[in-house]
Amino acid sequence: MALRNFTLGDVYRRNAECFPDYPAFLFKGERITHAQYLRRVERLAAGLARLGVSSGDRIGVLSQNSLEMVDLIGAVALLGAILLPVNFRLNPDEIAFVLSDGAPCVVIAGAEYHDAIVALRGSLPSVRYFVGVGPVHSSLIPFSELSETDVCLPEAAISGEDVFAIIHTAAVGGRPRGALLSQTGMLMAQSSLVQAWKLDERDVNLGVLPLFHLAGLGLMLAVQQAGGASLITAKFEAAQAARDIASEKVTVMSEFAPMLGNILDQAQPGQLASLRAVTGLDTPVTIERFETEWPNATFWVAFGQSETSGLATLSPYRDRPKSAGRPLFWHHIEVVDGDDRPRPTGETGEIVLRGPTVFKGYWNREADTAATFRNGWHHTGDIGYFDADGYLWYVGRAPEKELIKTGGENVYPAEVENVIREHPAISDVVVISVPDPQWSEAIKAVCVRRASRNATADEIIDFVGEKIARYKRPKHIVFVDDLPRTAKGEIDRAAVKSMHGRA
Amino acid sequence: MALRNFTLGDVYRRNAECFPDYPAFLFKGERITHAQYLRRVERLAAGLARLGVSSGDRIGVLSQNSLEMVDLIGAVALLGAILLPVNFRLNPDEIAFVLSDGAPCVVIAGAEYHDAIVALRGSLPSVRYFVGVGPVHSSLIPFSELSETDVCLPEAAISGEDVFAIIHTAAVGGRPRGALLSQTGMLMAQSSLVQAWKLDERDVNLGVLPLFHLAGLGLMLAVQQAGGASLITAKFEAAQAARDIASEKVTVMSEFAPMLGNILDQAQPGQLASLRAVTGLDTPVTIERFETEWPNATFWVAFGQSETSGLATLSPYRDRPKSAGRPLFWHHIEVVDGDDRPRPTGETGEIVLRGPTVFKGYWNREADTAATFRNGWHHTGDIGYFDADGYLWYVGRAPEKELIKTGGENVYPAEVENVIREHPAISDVVVISVPDPQWSEAIKAVCVRRASRNATADEIIDFVGEKIARYKRPKHIVFVDDLPRTAKGEIDRAAVKSMHGRA
Repeated sequence: MALRNFTLGDVYRRNAECFPDYPAFLFKGERITHAQYLRRVERLAAGLARLGVSSGDRIGVLSQNSLEMVDLIGAVALLGAILLPVNFRLNPDEIAFVLSDGAPCVVIAGAEYHDAIVALRGSLPSVRYFVGVGPVHSSLIPFSELSETDVCLPEAAISGEDVFAIIHTAAVGGRPRGALLSQTGMLMAQSSLVQAWKLDERDVNLGVLPLFHLAGLGLMLAVQQAGGASLITAKFEAAQAARDIASEKVTVMSEFAPMLGNILDQAQPGQLASLRAVTGLDTPVTIERFETEWPNATFWVAFGQSETSGLATLSPYRDRPKSAGRPLFWHHIEVVDGDDRPRPTGETGEIVLRGPTVFKGYWNREADTAATFRNGWHHTGDIGYFDADGYLWYVGRAPEKELIKTGGENVYPAEVENVIREHPAISDVVVISVPDPQWSEAIKAVCVRRASRNATADEIIDFVGEKIARYKRPKHIVFVDDLPRTAKGEIDRAAVKSMHGRA
Repeated sequence: MALRNFTLGDVYRRNAECFPDYPAFLFKGERITHAQYLRRVERLAAGLARLGVSSGDRIGVLSQNSLEMVDLIGAVALLGAILLPVNFRLNPDEIAFVLSDGAPCVVIAGAEYHDAIVALRGSLPSVRYFVGVGPVHSSLIPFSELSETDVCLPEAAISGEDVFAIIHTAAVGGRPRGALLSQTGMLMAQSSLVQAWKLDERDVNLGVLPLFHLAGLGLMLAVQQAGGASLITAKFEAAQAARDIASEKVTVMSEFAPMLGNILDQAQPGQLASLRAVTGLDTPVTIERFETEWPNATFWVAFGQSETSGLATLSPYRDRPKSAGRPLFWHHIEVVDGDDRPRPTGETGEIVLRGPTVFKGYWNREADTAATFRNGWHHTGDIGYFDADGYLWYVGRAPEKELIKTGGENVYPAEVENVIREHPAISDVVVISVPDPQWSEAIKAVCVRRASRNATADEIIDFVGEKIARYKRPKHIVFVDDLPRTAKGEIDRAAVKSMHGRA
């Protein structure tokens, strides 16, 4: 081990020594202490090492949140291997793309995804072992058989600077790109959240967000770095979430609309009394209702990306309602013009960032990486400004990098446009984001039909749902005669947005 | 600036943006806000740059705590230069040694040390500029003239990995060695203290320890990283400290015996009510009295070194009285045998450590550095054990590296022994630590007189006081006929200690 190194494995070891009997994970009535967690991940790591997994190898995982998944995260970290989590809401083609791109040597499927993985076997030549959780197909290795009882881990020289996870995101060109996140970057990003929320070993996180998403993974790690516990939830159900908060005295949570509103609808008197801090994306109506009904709790506004290893800004909503909050420790954020010169306070520009939490680049995309990191800044593609008190205000995506955040999922217009253009009745399309009271944002497609061809809105919506993940279907379709163009003849996305940007 | 960099300058900039009007430093009625502090350090850095100071250059400073000193710390950090603070309690020869060893290009003397610096001028060839705070000799540059009004800082590529300070310590061979501390190491060490103490922008530190000492510098930085304030104290005076705590609502403090006891003696009813966390070295009697008289406050036991950039363990005294506490985040600590194999729980061995807070080596001492870092561990030279709950227990120094901690100062027996051996009446001597109710530990010299020569205890004590810093004088002298030896014929320090280790 290197002298100045501190890795996720060191977090697990420190927790097992300092807080051995405190819960690390809670799942369907099971309680895994920090001491037990360390033993579990050591055993699983030994089993993966036996399969030949070593430093730098990718392990694909397609699973709802589960104890197996949190064990896998820890085992991958101990081996210096790379976690390749797949959004389980993607359709088979999209899943195949992510797994082909990441080229894992092992793929692990949650109980719900055995069929999906078996169907993909032939198209994933990099994969040497397919593993399934629970009772499995004969063609899958049972996950339960992986763990070794006799732990003899190879003495690997794990560096915190090594890549720990590849998170596919940023599909501005129509296909997601894998953001490379290091152990040190993740630990430092979450340490700034530990500082802001003053997390300690008594905190309990309600893990309702999927762990393939950095918002779910990040808060789980932050609470773990403080010695606290995460209650793992496979599928969000609002009344159950309210009961879990009450029974486990949950203190913190990260969520995307409409989760919090649904919990508020279902909560019985007193059930949410232990909850002190919530962050995520939600509407002012829900946030203000939450803080009114549960006055001891604080909703924290935030800005972050997979590319920044987690949150980069965070402040109480009530300190500056509707802002994105102020920069967290370890993050230096600027708003710049097209030449990367700082914009004056109050003036809008691209949000750029530097610091130890910046990702290490896009997997196998050197040109994209170089462009994103030009002039020593990570270019977020997000547009905003700082006010005179240092609060960041989020304005939207750069027109060429538009991103729709609906129900916590990132949808890139290009993905949806590429599909709609395949429809025989459509000659051109622009997909934009419109405000939505339930999902924060919804998808709207502004379509041009071919002469003499016809198609209804429902046909287009269904067509998209068959080709890519269902959450990427437009909620709104409008048909227009033609699309506005710039002087250069390119489609003027900003003009489309200003004409059609209402629901 | 490098993409994944975060430096002390970024801390000052973040504070100026997020907490512009919060106090950063309080000194004799002056209040310097975070916004003002950033401007002050930028102006001073520009002035130092005009003198030719750039990345990697050393700036010597011999000063009591002052606003000028905290400005200097910030300016040095902005330039990527290296702070070389000198313990002002050393005698002229010792001061000359530290300044010669560090070879600074600029030396800055506090108002009390102009004569001392002027006297050393001829023996410090590396120094191009001698600067004095306050009204100065004609041969010194006035500090007040250094700051530039027109700030135009050179665009230096400051890396957090660069050395930020050289702290002279670890004089096991009789002369102190300079421990090289990086900006990143310092920030990470203090971030673990921010986490443990949940520091935020409302915290106020009573800075009674000198800033040349890492215990003083570390807590000042930790509070600054949280956006809080430090009240700078030039000279400790107990009644004034109690009044300062009351008037500025001080929340945290680091101290060495007998400071806290003296404050308790002087405190008026209610004066210490805001104090919530204190750490340092003190006696169980004082700690228990403190927590009894001020039940809202907690005394935290700790272990740390200059070589670990600050504290490495920290826990409430009441959780495990007389232990050294549990490992802080970012620190992986083991207790090992002579071959660096982990010792079982409860078994004593050398305390070793790895993590990003480990220093970068001893300045110009490659062999010492390699020995200290052998097998991928920093060897602290301290002996201790872990109990079953993960608390570290400090037992003492390794016999060959004995260190006496008296009133917060480190005294290495070899320094004192070398002086006593120069006395014509003494043929050999072993210097050891003995418990002391006031200073935690006191210095005891076990001396062998030459045949037919005589010397009294007071003569020996005065002799030491003339040659090295007065705090290094033995409090106790015993004369013996000879010293115990090992089978190899070497002096058996452990045997001396067991025979004479009481006051």
